[in-house]
Amino acid sequence: MDTHLSNTAPAYDRLKQRFARIATLGEAAAMLGWDAQAMMPDGGSEARGEQLATLSGLAHEMLVAPETGALLEAASTPDSSAWDVANLRLMKRSYLKATVLPGDLVEALSRQSNACEMAWRQARAESDFAAIAPKLEGLLSLVREQATALSEVLSLSPYDALMDEFQPGIGAADAAPIFARYEAFLRDNLDAIEARQAAGPAPVALPALPIDAQEALCRDLAARVGLDFDHARLDRSIHPFCGGTPTDIRITTRYSEADPSNALYAVVHETGHALYEAGLPKDWRGRQPVGQACGMAAHESQSLSIEMQACRSDAFLSWLGPFLAERFGDHPAYAPDNLARAWRRVERGFIRVDADEVTYPAHVILRFRLEQAMIAGDLKVADLPGAWAEGLHALLGVTPPDDARGCLQDIHWYSGAFGYFPSYSLGAMTAAQLMDAARAATLDLDAALATGDFRPLRGWMAANVHAQGSLYGFNDLLRHATGAPLGIEPFLAHLRRRYLD
Amino acid sequence: MDTHLSNTAPAYDRLKQRFARIATLGEAAAMLGWDAQAMMPDGGSEARGEQLATLSGLAHEMLVAPETGALLEAASTPDSSAWDVANLRLMKRSYLKATVLPGDLVEALSRQSNACEMAWRQARAESDFAAIAPKLEGLLSLVREQATALSEVLSLSPYDALMDEFQPGIGAADAAPIFARYEAFLRDNLDAIEARQAAGPAPVALPALPIDAQEALCRDLAARVGLDFDHARLDRSIHPFCGGTPTDIRITTRYSEADPSNALYAVVHETGHALYEAGLPKDWRGRQPVGQACGMAAHESQSLSIEMQACRSDAFLSWLGPFLAERFGDHPAYAPDNLARAWRRVERGFIRVDADEVTYPAHVILRFRLEQAMIAGDLKVADLPGAWAEGLHALLGVTPPDDARGCLQDIHWYSGAFGYFPSYSLGAMTAAQLMDAARAATLDLDAALATGDFRPLRGWMAANVHAQGSLYGFNDLLRHATGAPLGIEPFLAHLRRRYLD
Repeated sequence: MDTHLSNTAPAYDRLKQRFARIATLGEAAAMLGWDAQAMMPDGGSEARGEQLATLSGLAHEMLVAPETGALLEAASTPDSSAWDVANLRLMKRSYLKATVLPGDLVEALSRQSNACEMAWRQARAESDFAAIAPKLEGLLSLVREQATALSEVLSLSPYDALMDEFQPGIGAADAAPIFARYEAFLRDNLDAIEARQAAGPAPVALPALPIDAQEALCRDLAARVGLDFDHARLDRSIHPFCGGTPTDIRITTRYSEADPSNALYAVVHETGHALYEAGLPKDWRGRQPVGQACGMAAHESQSLSIEMQACRSDAFLSWLGPFLAERFGDHPAYAPDNLARAWRRVERGFIRVDADEVTYPAHVILRFRLEQAMIAGDLKVADLPGAWAEGLHALLGVTPPDDARGCLQDIHWYSGAFGYFPSYSLGAMTAAQLMDAARAATLDLDAALATGDFRPLRGWMAANVHAQGSLYGFNDLLRHATGAPLGIEPFLAHLRRRYLD
Repeated sequence: MDTHLSNTAPAYDRLKQRFARIATLGEAAAMLGWDAQAMMPDGGSEARGEQLATLSGLAHEMLVAPETGALLEAASTPDSSAWDVANLRLMKRSYLKATVLPGDLVEALSRQSNACEMAWRQARAESDFAAIAPKLEGLLSLVREQATALSEVLSLSPYDALMDEFQPGIGAADAAPIFARYEAFLRDNLDAIEARQAAGPAPVALPALPIDAQEALCRDLAARVGLDFDHARLDRSIHPFCGGTPTDIRITTRYSEADPSNALYAVVHETGHALYEAGLPKDWRGRQPVGQACGMAAHESQSLSIEMQACRSDAFLSWLGPFLAERFGDHPAYAPDNLARAWRRVERGFIRVDADEVTYPAHVILRFRLEQAMIAGDLKVADLPGAWAEGLHALLGVTPPDDARGCLQDIHWYSGAFGYFPSYSLGAMTAAQLMDAARAATLDLDAALATGDFRPLRGWMAANVHAQGSLYGFNDLLRHATGAPLGIEPFLAHLRRRYLD
């Protein structure tokens, strides 16, 4: 435990101690959260809820305590340390965001989002939007209050203030033109991509594999990508995720005997997240705000550069195909060309989480526009199903057959998370831009992938992204790593190379 | 999370809220402690140490805060509720014990016991007592300070104040005559027990079983004994234990393919502990002091009544033998008579944790006498190896060949735990006394065990022990359950029936 600093210690040192304690409570909660998904028997959920509420309640109390405010006013950092300067700035931001929301709003949000999320499960199962609409309306009105309060203290628009919760440093004004450009790309190219795909052979499905064999394969591939099992575990849960703490990472996946692809790609995806967490700056990670990852889009760039950019590349598949054949016996599905066809198939669908990398951004663009309109008060909850169907048709030319496959498919809004969706596609675009820079800096990156070797890729990401923590804002991180703020061209070039050339 | 009570709420209600929060932090720590033993990769240990220290530090701060003292002075409970009266008494006791120790002593104890425990691992591996003696001396002198401080506030002798940490309500003056009586019993009967055993056939060892099969068996037996897997898990760890919380219990064991007995008996033992935790009073458990188990001896009585009393009884073995034969195929080892010979073998050995139920108390008596002498200042650390060898010889007629198998075998003293050992044997004696009462109250208890049915035993223990929490002190719990305070006769009668008749 920390030795307590006396009241005469410099204010910034005392703040660091306070934030370290808050971060440690967060780490304890992260482990308990993993356990709840991966290990806990059902009967433990009530007590676990109490434990997590107590930990977050204590952390919140420590953050908003008047002493925190007084120390922040008194604190100064040596000008010479960019890390300390950024850390103090992030402390202030964190304190402001936590103190600006009235306690009864926080409580109402927590209660209403719990209730709405519970009701959503049933509404989705029964594809009954009308049943959930009143609860979503109530939640939306609280989220708008939250957005207004945050917007004042952050000097951002209400919607940008919500985006800031997930990826600070990038707002609707940055995302909108990028997404408009992507919409045009789809309009101009999706038919051609499909025609080219239709002209080739149909993919051969991968043969079924016993789950133990899949798990061993996932473990080997995760280690090859870079997961250090002295500091990590791989377990099972209903939804794959990356949890735990930087030195004790817990990734999960789910297995289906009939379809080994899902588990495999979930694991390399989560391993991308894991590498980011494990690679955060040692002196700050798990202790101080500046030691955290730079945001959700940055995080998604790391999972997608592994899953989409590297693990679905021709180079890597040329290694993986023979590796699978040697391990499980020859099968036509393991031909690298076939793996590419199976794992890079483009299809206009209704479901975001099932979408390929070409159509995925269309699902995000739809949600980005609808949630902006809801936060602005321009779209009523009652009109959401119609707007959804229309919007999806405009983007992809398909119409969901029901609301379960339409505006009820994602948990986000029903749990109060508005402003999250853009991070997914901004992450995909960031991944492409980072990969270009990594390739330019590392001559042998693809040659290494073609031997199943991730070290050059991992090394570049570790130095240019992971080890930077939250030293920079989002676009400054990209400027340092790639020479430019986020742009869409690298992603479009990647798609053209992969799906059109 | 708890709604915060206003400052004008009755003091006792505010205390309950405070203690509930402290208990919830303890629950979080219990889950993280289980994870550290059963799941955590080695690389997570440093961060886990930080998490656990932070949780216990916060809990301690809440307990010793001046507000706690002020509320305790102001609090009163309705006379009509024995539970509230007991709860308030236990709150006061807990506060007094936490506040009487100076902060620098607590810190020194924590540092010295960590250092001594680390050094002990090496000293035991090399059987080098001289290497650890100075660290143990330093630790002992701090423990004596602790005992003196506690003794003043508890109005107990220093050694009794240490015993009180593990089993409140029973001291050296209670244990000493019981142990003296047991020493006499051994002197009078151990030779006869061995002679009777030698006259019978030698036991046939159980055949090896694949570990998966052992695990499935352990799971089935634990469920049969009464473990509810909606509120529990069974996993693996280096040392078997029962952890977690009353609604989310985590028991562990270890497996050896060659010897299925160890895992099996560890699991039924830990299941006994688990039933106690799961059966604690619903309105108080995991939240208030009165909702906790009554102490370590009481806890051990529950594991031993399952493991030693029930699961090694003729009645249960008459069911288990055919059950094993049906499950794994006929084998001479599975004959109930042979199981009894294999699992009730008496042997004078050097190692406490390997001892049978007849010689086990001798190991405890030795430690009880030596630690009293050390706390009183009558035995110097340097003289411990000699006193140990002499003492064991006097009790069992054997002399350890080295200190690794002598005074270095147990972790307890080297981690600062003095006063713990008596609980083991007092628990065995308590188990026998409770079993007698359970048999008298429940006509079909053994008939049920002979069909593999633990419900009558479990039901009686649940009502008479588990559901009582800490409502009574140790001997009052026994008076209510059995009509008398702890005595040794039921245990001696049990041993006579099992090993001499």
